[in-house]
Amino acid sequence: MEFDLIARHFTRATPGAVLGVGDDCALVSPTPGKQLAITTDLLIEGRHFMPQDGPAGLGHKTAAVNLSDLAAMGATPRWATLQIALPATNDAWLAAYARGLFRMLDAHGCELVGGDTTRADVLTFGLTVFGEIEPGCALTRGGAKPGDDVWVSGLIGSAALALAYRQGRLFMEQIHAAKVLPALYLPTPRVELGQALVGLASAAIDVSDGLCADLGHILTRSGVGADLDFAAIPVHEIAHDYLHEPAAIEAILAGGDDYELCFTAPAQQRTAIEAAAQSLGVRVSRIGATRDTPGLVVRNAHGEAIPLARTGYDHFAA
Amino acid sequence: MEFDLIARHFTRATPGAVLGVGDDCALVSPTPGKQLAITTDLLIEGRHFMPQDGPAGLGHKTAAVNLSDLAAMGATPRWATLQIALPATNDAWLAAYARGLFRMLDAHGCELVGGDTTRADVLTFGLTVFGEIEPGCALTRGGAKPGDDVWVSGLIGSAALALAYRQGRLFMEQIHAAKVLPALYLPTPRVELGQALVGLASAAIDVSDGLCADLGHILTRSGVGADLDFAAIPVHEIAHDYLHEPAAIEAILAGGDDYELCFTAPAQQRTAIEAAAQSLGVRVSRIGATRDTPGLVVRNAHGEAIPLARTGYDHFAA
Repeated sequence: MEFDLIARHFTRATPGAVLGVGDDCALVSPTPGKQLAITTDLLIEGRHFMPQDGPAGLGHKTAAVNLSDLAAMGATPRWATLQIALPATNDAWLAAYARGLFRMLDAHGCELVGGDTTRADVLTFGLTVFGEIEPGCALTRGGAKPGDDVWVSGLIGSAALALAYRQGRLFMEQIHAAKVLPALYLPTPRVELGQALVGLASAAIDVSDGLCADLGHILTRSGVGADLDFAAIPVHEIAHDYLHEPAAIEAILAGGDDYELCFTAPAQQRTAIEAAAQSLGVRVSRIGATRDTPGLVVRNAHGEAIPLARTGYDHFAA
Repeated sequence: MEFDLIARHFTRATPGAVLGVGDDCALVSPTPGKQLAITTDLLIEGRHFMPQDGPAGLGHKTAAVNLSDLAAMGATPRWATLQIALPATNDAWLAAYARGLFRMLDAHGCELVGGDTTRADVLTFGLTVFGEIEPGCALTRGGAKPGDDVWVSGLIGSAALALAYRQGRLFMEQIHAAKVLPALYLPTPRVELGQALVGLASAAIDVSDGLCADLGHILTRSGVGADLDFAAIPVHEIAHDYLHEPAAIEAILAGGDDYELCFTAPAQQRTAIEAAAQSLGVRVSRIGATRDTPGLVVRNAHGEAIPLARTGYDHFAA
């Protein structure tokens, strides 16, 4: 029964909302003078996750991929609404899903205030999250200037290496696969780093579709180009064993699902960015620079351009 | 290609937003001092609509069912975000869907500011809408007092009669079916009526799961019961030809999808409510009254209680 289901697993006290789950709408009081950042993502079985994927991890990922979009704007998470379409009710499964979801939302002070539950043949989750930010402070994709540094947080390509292994596109030792699989299943949204980059970064995006594709959005929106140094891109130590494989290079440059931040900033912000990242315990790496001519080139150790035939995940590719 | 698709059909000027479709998040500036009402609904092929249903009507319905939730709170629509999961891109289909969606959103001053598009095997739409309302003014489900009138807007049961006909559960003359089918495919959210009821109604809900089920939520939340007079429930004139059929009675009392408002109000507000409805050109009808003892009874013309075995749509019924 829909209402029991919602009450049992997804209704909790919402001290930060006027009215939580259970009425026609949720009601919240936005902080006067702040802007509201809104983002939404659908996760669908068979496309974004597999039937055998565990529920707590799915709950974690549902929250993480959306919080990552707030991170890329520098916004502070406040509220969320959840849509669930599921073939049948399974109490233990939903309890674990809710546990994973709430753990990630709670870690970022984000309250679940409403949603919609329905029956459907394909398990589908949709989360919409709401964050707040001071007017004029949001990190958009359009602010990069020629000569800015290009940065990324964390490690790039781990999630895509794990996916390539899982899908049989990349041979990998199991002990290595086990080290990158967490990046695919339990991504860490860089919410605090995003907030710390307000006033320092000129543009930001989260790496969900692939490093080149996502950086490409910044470049297009900002009207600049960029040169990257492949060797400067931070990858998991196990990745070095596979860099002779085109599938591994592709995972790093064009794989998605890392949910790290890619951002640009003027060179004079280097010290401040490194200090901010260090205080948060998050690794940040400079991987190249923007230029005033369009295009994106990634050079290998010999200074040669790496072919970027497939630079990102196209949701509607054949 | 995802980004082309979004740009072509769903990106328009958003003068009421700081930042619309195309960045990590949409950015809006909530009106200082107002509360934000948030609601979301998923529409899934095979469950909420059929493969043969036309795209413009689906766009209309996606917007209407969500705006109806804002109506039930008395909130003023401001912004919306759209999720689409679709098996393949079909330009003409999406153009028509967008036309239906925007026509309904535009009619209520609601701007599409963001969303998510992905590929999936089952066509799925999710809309989240945002409305504003003065603090303390929202029409919740919990404010009904014993002795309040129970009201509904428009006609009740038309959508469910059409669905029963379409599903072969109710014999109906085609000329009659044609008269109630618009209620199923092109529901009218009572947004202006909801706003006009602020300060007049004590509780409100929209009729999406069925009259008795939805009124039941008001009764449970408010800690009251109610008696309804079946003959006072406004039905389409063609419905009278089918009232000897249990399926027709069930459609009226337990059918959903009308998206009319069901609300309660003190008797002293009768004149004000009728005047407000008349000025908006919306029919409103008093169909019963609440009482301090729990329960819901609907009486026929002989004063006998009509059995309410199945009083509403249970999303997880077998």
